[in-house]
Amino acid sequence: MTLTDVEGPLAKTLGDIREFVEEELYPLERSMATDGFESVEPAIVDVRKKVRENGWWAPHFHKEYGGMGLSLLEFARVGEVLATTPLGHYAFNCQAPDVGNSEILHAFGTEEQKQRWLAPIISGEIRSCFSMTEPEHAGSNPTMMSTTAVKDGDDYVINGHKWFTSSADGAALAVVMVITNPEAEGRHARASQVLVPTDTPGFELVRNISIMGDVGSGWASHAEVRYTDVRIPRENLLGDEGSGFAIAQERLGPGRIHHCMRWIGIAERALDLMCRYAVERQLTTTGVLADQGTIQNWVAESRAEINAARLMVLDTAYRMDRDGASATRNEVSMIKFFAAPILLRVLDRAIQVHGGLGMTDDTPLSYWFRHERAARIYDGPDEVHKMVVARRILGSYRT
Amino acid sequence: MTLTDVEGPLAKTLGDIREFVEEELYPLERSMATDGFESVEPAIVDVRKKVRENGWWAPHFHKEYGGMGLSLLEFARVGEVLATTPLGHYAFNCQAPDVGNSEILHAFGTEEQKQRWLAPIISGEIRSCFSMTEPEHAGSNPTMMSTTAVKDGDDYVINGHKWFTSSADGAALAVVMVITNPEAEGRHARASQVLVPTDTPGFELVRNISIMGDVGSGWASHAEVRYTDVRIPRENLLGDEGSGFAIAQERLGPGRIHHCMRWIGIAERALDLMCRYAVERQLTTTGVLADQGTIQNWVAESRAEINAARLMVLDTAYRMDRDGASATRNEVSMIKFFAAPILLRVLDRAIQVHGGLGMTDDTPLSYWFRHERAARIYDGPDEVHKMVVARRILGSYRT
Amino acid sequence: MTLTDVEGPLAKTLGDIREFVEEELYPLERSMATDGFESVEPAIVDVRKKVRENGWWAPHFHKEYGGMGLSLLEFARVGEVLATTPLGHYAFNCQAPDVGNSEILHAFGTEEQKQRWLAPIISGEIRSCFSMTEPEHAGSNPTMMSTTAVKDGDDYVINGHKWFTSSADGAALAVVMVITNPEAEGRHARASQVLVPTDTPGFELVRNISIMGDVGSGWASHAEVRYTDVRIPRENLLGDEGSGFAIAQERLGPGRIHHCMRWIGIAERALDLMCRYAVERQLTTTGVLADQGTIQNWVAESRAEINAARLMVLDTAYRMDRDGASATRNEVSMIKFFAAPILLRVLDRAIQVHGGLGMTDDTPLSYWFRHERAARIYDGPDEVHKMVVARRILGSYRT
Amino acid sequence: MTLTDVEGPLAKTLGDIREFVEEELYPLERSMATDGFESVEPAIVDVRKKVRENGWWAPHFHKEYGGMGLSLLEFARVGEVLATTPLGHYAFNCQAPDVGNSEILHAFGTEEQKQRWLAPIISGEIRSCFSMTEPEHAGSNPTMMSTTAVKDGDDYVINGHKWFTSSADGAALAVVMVITNPEAEGRHARASQVLVPTDTPGFELVRNISIMGDVGSGWASHAEVRYTDVRIPRENLLGDEGSGFAIAQERLGPGRIHHCMRWIGIAERALDLMCRYAVERQLTTTGVLADQGTIQNWVAESRAEINAARLMVLDTAYRMDRDGASATRNEVSMIKFFAAPILLRVLDRAIQVHGGLGMTDDTPLSYWFRHERAARIYDGPDEVHKMVVARRILGSYRT
Repeated sequence: MTLTDVEGPLAKTLGDIREFVEEELYPLERSMATDGFESVEPAIVDVRKKVRENGWWAPHFHKEYGGMGLSLLEFARVGEVLATTPLGHYAFNCQAPDVGNSEILHAFGTEEQKQRWLAPIISGEIRSCFSMTEPEHAGSNPTMMSTTAVKDGDDYVINGHKWFTSSADGAALAVVMVITNPEAEGRHARASQVLVPTDTPGFELVRNISIMGDVGSGWASHAEVRYTDVRIPRENLLGDEGSGFAIAQERLGPGRIHHCMRWIGIAERALDLMCRYAVERQLTTTGVLADQGTIQNWVAESRAEINAARLMVLDTAYRMDRDGASATRNEVSMIKFFAAPILLRVLDRAIQVHGGLGMTDDTPLSYWFRHERAARIYDGPDEVHKMVVARRILGSYRT
Repeated sequence: MTLTDVEGPLAKTLGDIREFVEEELYPLERSMATDGFESVEPAIVDVRKKVRENGWWAPHFHKEYGGMGLSLLEFARVGEVLATTPLGHYAFNCQAPDVGNSEILHAFGTEEQKQRWLAPIISGEIRSCFSMTEPEHAGSNPTMMSTTAVKDGDDYVINGHKWFTSSADGAALAVVMVITNPEAEGRHARASQVLVPTDTPGFELVRNISIMGDVGSGWASHAEVRYTDVRIPRENLLGDEGSGFAIAQERLGPGRIHHCMRWIGIAERALDLMCRYAVERQLTTTGVLADQGTIQNWVAESRAEINAARLMVLDTAYRMDRDGASATRNEVSMIKFFAAPILLRVLDRAIQVHGGLGMTDDTPLSYWFRHERAARIYDGPDEVHKMVVARRILGSYRT
Repeated sequence: MTLTDVEGPLAKTLGDIREFVEEELYPLERSMATDGFESVEPAIVDVRKKVRENGWWAPHFHKEYGGMGLSLLEFARVGEVLATTPLGHYAFNCQAPDVGNSEILHAFGTEEQKQRWLAPIISGEIRSCFSMTEPEHAGSNPTMMSTTAVKDGDDYVINGHKWFTSSADGAALAVVMVITNPEAEGRHARASQVLVPTDTPGFELVRNISIMGDVGSGWASHAEVRYTDVRIPRENLLGDEGSGFAIAQERLGPGRIHHCMRWIGIAERALDLMCRYAVERQLTTTGVLADQGTIQNWVAESRAEINAARLMVLDTAYRMDRDGASATRNEVSMIKFFAAPILLRVLDRAIQVHGGLGMTDDTPLSYWFRHERAARIYDGPDEVHKMVVARRILGSYRT
Repeated sequence: MTLTDVEGPLAKTLGDIREFVEEELYPLERSMATDGFESVEPAIVDVRKKVRENGWWAPHFHKEYGGMGLSLLEFARVGEVLATTPLGHYAFNCQAPDVGNSEILHAFGTEEQKQRWLAPIISGEIRSCFSMTEPEHAGSNPTMMSTTAVKDGDDYVINGHKWFTSSADGAALAVVMVITNPEAEGRHARASQVLVPTDTPGFELVRNISIMGDVGSGWASHAEVRYTDVRIPRENLLGDEGSGFAIAQERLGPGRIHHCMRWIGIAERALDLMCRYAVERQLTTTGVLADQGTIQNWVAESRAEINAARLMVLDTAYRMDRDGASATRNEVSMIKFFAAPILLRVLDRAIQVHGGLGMTDDTPLSYWFRHERAARIYDGPDEVHKMVVARRILGSYRT
């Protein structure tokens, strides 16, 4: 068997989803790029209804919650198709950060927590956000954190300052990383994750941060949030006290693969746009862009690089399905720093092929060029992943 | 003498300008990035007044018109300082596309044309735009053009469709490239440049194009323009009929150097921001970003690459001052495709060093990352410049 | 299943072969690098005997001829292990160009030809060479060829000039590409392959070409050969007249994969040497090379790139096993231009980590750095493979 | 003035030298590459005589010793021309390591030392070598050194082990770096440089190290040397005791620029060979290599990169002439890590353009590809120079 072949029922489903995505979502891209998420939200409500009717809802999640129950390896193939357009994952209710939040709620939540938060997230009634990074500290070392949750009777009282709390705008729930045990010996045992309804007094969405010229709105936004004496009951603790980083790890492994799957889909679309444009655009009265050696190089290199990245992603997904997230840490780090530059390179080539048009929002390339620059930063910058992988490898040589 | 030393009066002026720019313009950056040119225009009016009082107005232009009368080599040093902030050139009234337009008006305009258009451009009363690229044709082969100016009595009647008519929003004058002699033998003899007041009936600013998520406004915008039966008198012809490309060449040589000078300044600022942040940002309780080998590599490589690009730009400016634009075609092409990737690489590194912050509009890096992606496209994509240079070199080997 | 797992009996065999190769062949490397193939040939005779006794002889070839009968996918795993040392493939009698020659003799040879040449090649009694490239013509366009075989009674009379006839020194047989049908309409129908015993009068080994400072000897050499009135009987024609290129294609597909398999093995060894040295070499009294961020980057990047290249090679081998060489042309071209730069990059990094030592022949790195520079050239330069792949992809977009 | 113009008498001299080098030295390249320095030494004796007659002897050295007395900036132009062929510097008696040795003898030697060693080196009667790097220690941290010179009466007794003692084969004098003051507080105050006649008992040339497949001979060799109870009189100390590193710094600054000058010349020759071949080599019946977009890219990029590197080298030479070696440390480090990769990239492209021919020793490209790989290693690896430059820059930001 080869990793890139898809057989049987999934092949048919993939074809149908691809067609659906192209018909229903591609036409919304331009409005999304120029007028933001709000401008397309009504249309998306309608698309979501159709997705549900087609039985494709929450493809990554357990069937008992109404998802498709796909394995990571299977979801990789679906996720790639959805990613060919900026709204694909949202339309199928498998968008970050809700995916990560639902995974940890499922794994670590109490029955009551699941009832109250997980069920409506999966059903699409509410959205959630994840509040971890702080502007005052380097995100690449999450143990440096200032937000605290201090016990006060049966409550925690939270004070702190976060940013890159993505999708907070309109979210009902914030999963918040807080220091609960500042005296714990290991730095990794000091934090917990707590569930904060966003209508709790003291939860303040300071601003949607302007990211690459785009303030964003609703799901497609990244908030700065201030927590001032935010009081929540102790039953809003997720998992055990002090388990914040352990839970975060559980979340990040699959989360990183999900990103990589998305990148493959974006890169495929960029290559497709590049080829379409190259064969159409006249350079001279007799020749088109596609006749140029340089552009041929870019097409061939992009094709090979995307193929390589996809094989890495699928291989890692297969291993994570089989061996779990912890055993696949190196593979996950490697696809992240291997695939992100490929995505950005392919996008860059596609823009260059489009010339001036590539700079405009008349194609989705510009949207990705701006927003996916973060692919080399979020969930750990490439440099940190390289260091971590290298230290493990070199460690095995040290005597 | 070395190209990178500046001595005598210019050294003092450069220092003063640098101080002025940092004090007056850096504080406007954030507003410019998030709320656009309109939001800072009132403040800029005031800054411009001070620039004029300091005797720094229009540093690139002839003294008899009120400029500083600097040589290209001298202006390169000034332009670099201005470029460290997005509004620098505008504040000193040496911004594109007015610089290019004033140069060709000065070289090819009639006395009347100079009186009517050149004088108020240099004085800053009006702005102008340059209307050449057409959406239907590859900009890299400008001889493929559809916009026509047909003689009708003493008038020309213009019909056509242009885009990337930068700064058309608010401009009083459009210099327009039109086909006047479709039957001329050589493709390069078919076009002329004509002066079109933007209040002429039939001149329609269709839209400010959304560029990398930014529609822009005023001077900082890129328009799509439609010309429908736009009637102008024959005396609005610039230079001779059929000389459109010859004039464009005259404009593009210095124009390309001006861009390169700007890129050096932007890259310097990006490196400066990178270093400032690297020494401040704690990675651990004891270490900062600047301690990391990877970041040290980026700092050293950026420093060397900017130095190399600057030497190339200064050397080319010196040669163009001495030998003229035509004799320096190869050098101009080379600095363009050599310096643009360096600019983009340094910006990319600076963003990566800033992590999440680099993605936001809280620093000017994001503005340049988005807008200067076009550096490899405008005024001829890198690929075309490489081809042109290579063909000249290889041509000298063919027997 | 994942492509990179090996299970069952092959896993055991691979482990045994790896151990054998390290014990028997690694100690010969230095002599090979400094004194050439001749200096190690006696030792190799002995190793070959043991390989045969272990049942590992000719792993790529059919069992009925005494080989192991592995599929391409299986041989990829074995070939990688053998490639970790320059003499691995030769010791197991699966070295180029004999592998390619035996494949085409097996597929296209008459019973008599197989008896006379194929059997002794597989048994290791004789060696063969492949004589195609001509110094006067670009190897990347093999239809430009001057060597002719003119019919004269029952014979062909061959005249021509070849180089890069690898391993001609000491070979008993040359498979020679010749023009037999100069008047055929298509350029690809003009050539045939003929079998020329190297003791035929007129076969002149002009020189072993000095390649990267190394004249080589025996199997490890690349000859310039002149054919002057070389007379062979018509039964020495391989396959049909005019089928020369068709046969060559049949040979090149698997041949290119074999090279890529080898490259993976070389790259693995280089990474291994890099890591070993990095943890041992003191930079300061307290620190070693492996503590440096730059070197950690190289280790991590090399690991990821080799993994990606291996997945590509295995996936292509799997597809070729299943679908045949013609259906896998794009994949073969892609692994070639994707994997070769990775090999060279990893070698380059390994040398840099070794510092001055990396320049010496005290490690095998220098041997590969010199000789495998050709990886981007032989069997079609990267540039040609990119062009071919791009044209197929872009062709599917042209309407 | 522009750095790349050469005017007046030097322009004429440069032209004459270029012609001389092409006529006298290019024909010796092939013999040098395949049969080594010994094979061309007799011819070189003759060329050296002519160089002397033409008044070009030792262009870098003081007139009172018979040199041309050129400034660094002037020698940069001459050195570039000489470097276009592997024997250029040797023929003009400005080859490493004699240049460095004569510089430190001139600056730090006693009158007697100058008489005995400097005069015959400059006259070309003898050759010298420099013995610093030790196989047991990383060359990038020279303070880690084991070779000692212990005072014994009026003598020093030296014991130690060195390698990369370039040109020791046939040299009369070794300048040796030794620990004389192991108890000195700072690590940089422990070493001295001493003058060791190579016929002193205990001086043992263990081997000429095989470098990239080439053992070398005479001047073109790199020796491993063992010092066993080598006894020299105290007057053979160069400069003060403990000044070994200070003297080495004095030597390395100009030495690194000399290398960079050489690299420019090699790169120019490689580009020239690339262009010559590209316009001649037929790819098809109607087209040559030079018509390919990829090759055009390489020509244009190489041209621009060499120009940039040259400007950096000339600017640094100018500054070192003016401000001294210490004030130019950053510039020297930067040209080293900036120019070396450009040299290697241009060589790599030139080889790729030549295809199989590029792998052979029929052009000088292979010689440089092998031997100049060390450009990124010798006199401090690129990585160390980057670190040093970055730390100085970042240091100025630390408060």
